[in-house]
Amino acid sequence: MAAADVALQYERIKKLAKADLRDSAITEAIREATRHGLDFLLTQAGTASLESDVPGKTYSSFELMGKLSRPINQALFDHETCLSALPVLGTEALTDMASEQITSVLYTTAMAFCATNDLLKRADQKTPGTYFEYMIGHLFARQFGVNPKTSIEVLNLDETANIPTDFVFDTGVNQAKFHVPVKISTRERVIQVWAHQRIIDGVYGAGRFKGLLVTLTETKLDRQSLRVIEICLPQQWKVYQRFVARLERVYYLDVPTKYAALASGYPAIAVKPFGDFFAEKDQLLA
Amino acid sequence: MAAADVALQYERIKKLAKADLRDSAITEAIREATRHGLDFLLTQAGTASLESDVPGKTYSSFELMGKLSRPINQALFDHETCLSALPVLGTEALTDMASEQITSVLYTTAMAFCATNDLLKRADQKTPGTYFEYMIGHLFARQFGVNPKTSIEVLNLDETANIPTDFVFDTGVNQAKFHVPVKISTRERVIQVWAHQRIIDGVYGAGRFKGLLVTLTETKLDRQSLRVIEICLPQQWKVYQRFVARLERVYYLDVPTKYAALASGYPAIAVKPFGDFFAEKDQLLA
Repeated sequence: MAAADVALQYERIKKLAKADLRDSAITEAIREATRHGLDFLLTQAGTASLESDVPGKTYSSFELMGKLSRPINQALFDHETCLSALPVLGTEALTDMASEQITSVLYTTAMAFCATNDLLKRADQKTPGTYFEYMIGHLFARQFGVNPKTSIEVLNLDETANIPTDFVFDTGVNQAKFHVPVKISTRERVIQVWAHQRIIDGVYGAGRFKGLLVTLTETKLDRQSLRVIEICLPQQWKVYQRFVARLERVYYLDVPTKYAALASGYPAIAVKPFGDFFAEKDQLLA
Repeated sequence: MAAADVALQYERIKKLAKADLRDSAITEAIREATRHGLDFLLTQAGTASLESDVPGKTYSSFELMGKLSRPINQALFDHETCLSALPVLGTEALTDMASEQITSVLYTTAMAFCATNDLLKRADQKTPGTYFEYMIGHLFARQFGVNPKTSIEVLNLDETANIPTDFVFDTGVNQAKFHVPVKISTRERVIQVWAHQRIIDGVYGAGRFKGLLVTLTETKLDRQSLRVIEICLPQQWKVYQRFVARLERVYYLDVPTKYAALASGYPAIAVKPFGDFFAEKDQLLA
């Protein structure tokens, strides 16, 4: 059964990631999970149209026995393009695709897993979050050619201390270094991302690690009214960017318009579609 | 029924707090909730002894029809002292009591409500948190003689912005000001407290608002093994205090030994029993 294969690939990725997040076997497992997920969603689930309160965006949910998946952005979810692009996932050839196409392929890849999990599990927020973290972490590990760490050493003279962090990538001596938090959505907890950036700035000096936040979406489905909203707090983000720390980029697979607008104004926050990363990677590495 | 009266007082407090958190009617409602809660717990619930993995502390739970309350610290929970002290709660006379006694009375007051709610509601984390916030907020509002705000204005030249915060108390022109986050327990989200302090420091200047974090306990009950542990991350707190912002005090009703030890070492974090606040209030106001 397609759905069981999705869960199987998840377990495989978890195991492989512990040893080496760059492993091409993880790419293969993501491809398999995506194929099986799409197969399940398109042949065994139905679709329910949703009312969108997000200007300019249309959403629907997959549906199985009265259960709804998270909202799926119709313009971004494209199973045909995704399936045909899967062979280049995790390879250098991905970088040759247009930004919009990469974003759409990766959105579909992420949603193939998340929506399948939504339909088969009950109130499981953790598995989609972990999968998305592995998926994005793997792409960065492939692009940077190094494995991330998930803690940093803090000098304290009198004792040693290691602080757990999201992914941190060190691409080499005198090379760029990155702090890469990965979130399914940010909601009210996002201040943690800026606070961690501040700590890393404090330990290594401001700017030593560039902060790249990667987020799937900010949509929320009201399951009574079947309305989709986007939860955005742009004023608060400005305050975090101004008083806590500076993030270099905020990448989304489904970019909220209100956050994209933060690219202008003070202090600017460069919020972009995740596909853009692959074109500007060299600039960020410089 | 005693238990229903507890819920009734909670609703009353919520309503009164909106108008004036200093209102002596809130003191009266807290007294009533405590009396009814203790009556319910002592006459209608049983007790279950728990294995304590916390050195030097003994815990038990109240029990009703197979349901267990959160762990109760036996040395701090004292219904007789609490009932006899209730008449001075919220008055200046509370300050005349010894610190240990105040801590015990307030611990018992908080637990009378929380344990009652644990036994009667299913998986309700929100109500105890809100009650505790009102209870502590009320005591501060009485002590400082002013109502707190829960947002601060941030100047941005081009637009106005208000950032939601925990309680902030402004005791007057050229007087001390306080940032008072109130938490049932801190867990991994506590970095938010330091990050908010950083924002407030950024807006008003470092030291303008003294940060006083007030927490009930850090205990966690494993419901399978009936063991109680305390979840503490002292190394992380040191890093927050060093790189994010400085908190002036961290008050607990059930002080974790590992956090109390942070009072020495670098950077020092003054973690104390909440009863101490009433004796050092004038020093903090200076």
